[in-house]
Amino acid sequence: MNETATPRLIGLDWGTSSLRAYLLGDNGQIVDTRSQPWGILHTPEGDFAKAFRELVGDWRAQWPSVPAIAAGMIGSRQGWREVPYVDCPADVDSLAKGLLTFDSGCGELSLIPGVMQRGALPNVLRGEETQIFGALELEPALADHALLVLPGTHSKWATIRGSRLDHFSTYMTGELFAVLREHSILGRPAREESSEPSNDAFMRGLTNARESGAEGVIGRLFTTRSLFLAGDLPARHSLDYLSGLLIGEELRSVVASLKGAVCPPLVLIGDPALCRRYQDALAFFEITDVRLLEQATRTGLWRIACAAGLVTAATPSQEDTRHV
Amino acid sequence: MNETATPRLIGLDWGTSSLRAYLLGDNGQIVDTRSQPWGILHTPEGDFAKAFRELVGDWRAQWPSVPAIAAGMIGSRQGWREVPYVDCPADVDSLAKGLLTFDSGCGELSLIPGVMQRGALPNVLRGEETQIFGALELEPALADHALLVLPGTHSKWATIRGSRLDHFSTYMTGELFAVLREHSILGRPAREESSEPSNDAFMRGLTNARESGAEGVIGRLFTTRSLFLAGDLPARHSLDYLSGLLIGEELRSVVASLKGAVCPPLVLIGDPALCRRYQDALAFFEITDVRLLEQATRTGLWRIACAAGLVTAATPSQEDTRHV
Repeated sequence: MNETATPRLIGLDWGTSSLRAYLLGDNGQIVDTRSQPWGILHTPEGDFAKAFRELVGDWRAQWPSVPAIAAGMIGSRQGWREVPYVDCPADVDSLAKGLLTFDSGCGELSLIPGVMQRGALPNVLRGEETQIFGALELEPALADHALLVLPGTHSKWATIRGSRLDHFSTYMTGELFAVLREHSILGRPAREESSEPSNDAFMRGLTNARESGAEGVIGRLFTTRSLFLAGDLPARHSLDYLSGLLIGEELRSVVASLKGAVCPPLVLIGDPALCRRYQDALAFFEITDVRLLEQATRTGLWRIACAAGLVTAATPSQEDTRHV
Repeated sequence: MNETATPRLIGLDWGTSSLRAYLLGDNGQIVDTRSQPWGILHTPEGDFAKAFRELVGDWRAQWPSVPAIAAGMIGSRQGWREVPYVDCPADVDSLAKGLLTFDSGCGELSLIPGVMQRGALPNVLRGEETQIFGALELEPALADHALLVLPGTHSKWATIRGSRLDHFSTYMTGELFAVLREHSILGRPAREESSEPSNDAFMRGLTNARESGAEGVIGRLFTTRSLFLAGDLPARHSLDYLSGLLIGEELRSVVASLKGAVCPPLVLIGDPALCRRYQDALAFFEITDVRLLEQATRTGLWRIACAAGLVTAATPSQEDTRHV
């Protein structure tokens, strides 16, 4: 804990599998942080109020006027309170207007809404909006036109135009990988033998996905099995091959959607190891204007809290005093 | 049981989930048939010899000189004896030469080999070879050039040229559907509510798959969830929508692989309800020269046993006597 800073905001990243709390000071700097494996599917007794009190109750007691804001699945139907989605295109102000503030039993808590893209093929996200607007705060040059990629269970590809979240897509790559690994014949050899990382196997999967062209990988998934049966893919490398096929299919599809247009500047946000894997895969698909960004969530929590008037950025004079 | 016919062959269709035995007479006509849910993953105590004896021991006792032949996963590494694959292209003679005959403890049993297509993207099948050569026996006009489709857990698309199995592909459509239904977020609404068949939802999934073009459905799978969240797809219809997306992706990929060439005459072999669903889907993709074929397995067992010299077709004079 940074003892000299003045707490200004309690920010929570409360997703499906984990809960992280930030105590933020002037300009959103980190004063303290805590986490628990209390994602909404794993909150003890499903008691969100108790989990909230246990994690941050002492902060609230010490600084009762500091507001609290939360992003993620805690605002979903399965969460504490359901926050209606705001419409896409969305900006930081529409998110701020969509906050749901309620009495948590331990002070007020404001939940950030997710975003719904309506139409024949609707799309939703919840939690990623906070990372997205955090990224735009960290890298203002992205605001004009950029592609933000948040790989994971459900990878989100968000197109930014004019400081707004203009459009987004969802690729269930991570969940597909997990269900195939755990429950399909493709994962069986690796379930019976220990795995060993193989970048070669990953690249081979990527290559097969790219070469599938307009057919896509649907007719090649089974090669994870047939290459093993033919003695040409060791069980211990089979999951990396499958990962290459699936991430390759995601990128093949995205490249096809560009229809020959140049890919805008691309930023990867999320788990660093997974982001590096995507960066390698993107390079293989000849998309090289790629950066990795961290700390997007807590910056987004701060940015949205500012837009909602929950906090105000420190005045220059305060800042000057501290840093000289 | 047909009491007047003379048994000539015991044929077994012994797959992953079920075991069916045919007692076949002259020209492969059915004399008797039996089945048990004793697929190789469900054989009591994993004792194949005992299961075989219990199912057909009385036939063997009554007609000790009648040979026995089996197709399917019973000849795989997880089965009774592993029968090496024969190479693709394959014909009925190469299958006959590849039979593995051994003492079952209840008379000799010959296992039919599967087929391996070698190369950078190998492929395997086991059991379908018997259906394929049964189909060619039932419909000799297919021998020149045809596309045989065996939908199921792993759909096989087999190209026939000059009476040979020339090439084949595997689409894991059925297994993908099953793991997504049982284990992914896409199946959750239907797992919590009862399903109701909806051809409209199936057609809607098909339509979205076809319209995905070169991008494929990887970025549209999540619409099974988002349409539900948007109130535009009832939970009870969501599985039919998902089925449409996945079967649609299989057909979209196959059509792309044709690269504009005319699809050869197409025959569907397998479960009649599933074959009709594929027939509807193929019509939506404008492939209309499609027939459904039944009884392919037992015809294939008979055909391969003939080619191996285990049985000989009845002489014309015998046939004439019976039918006049």
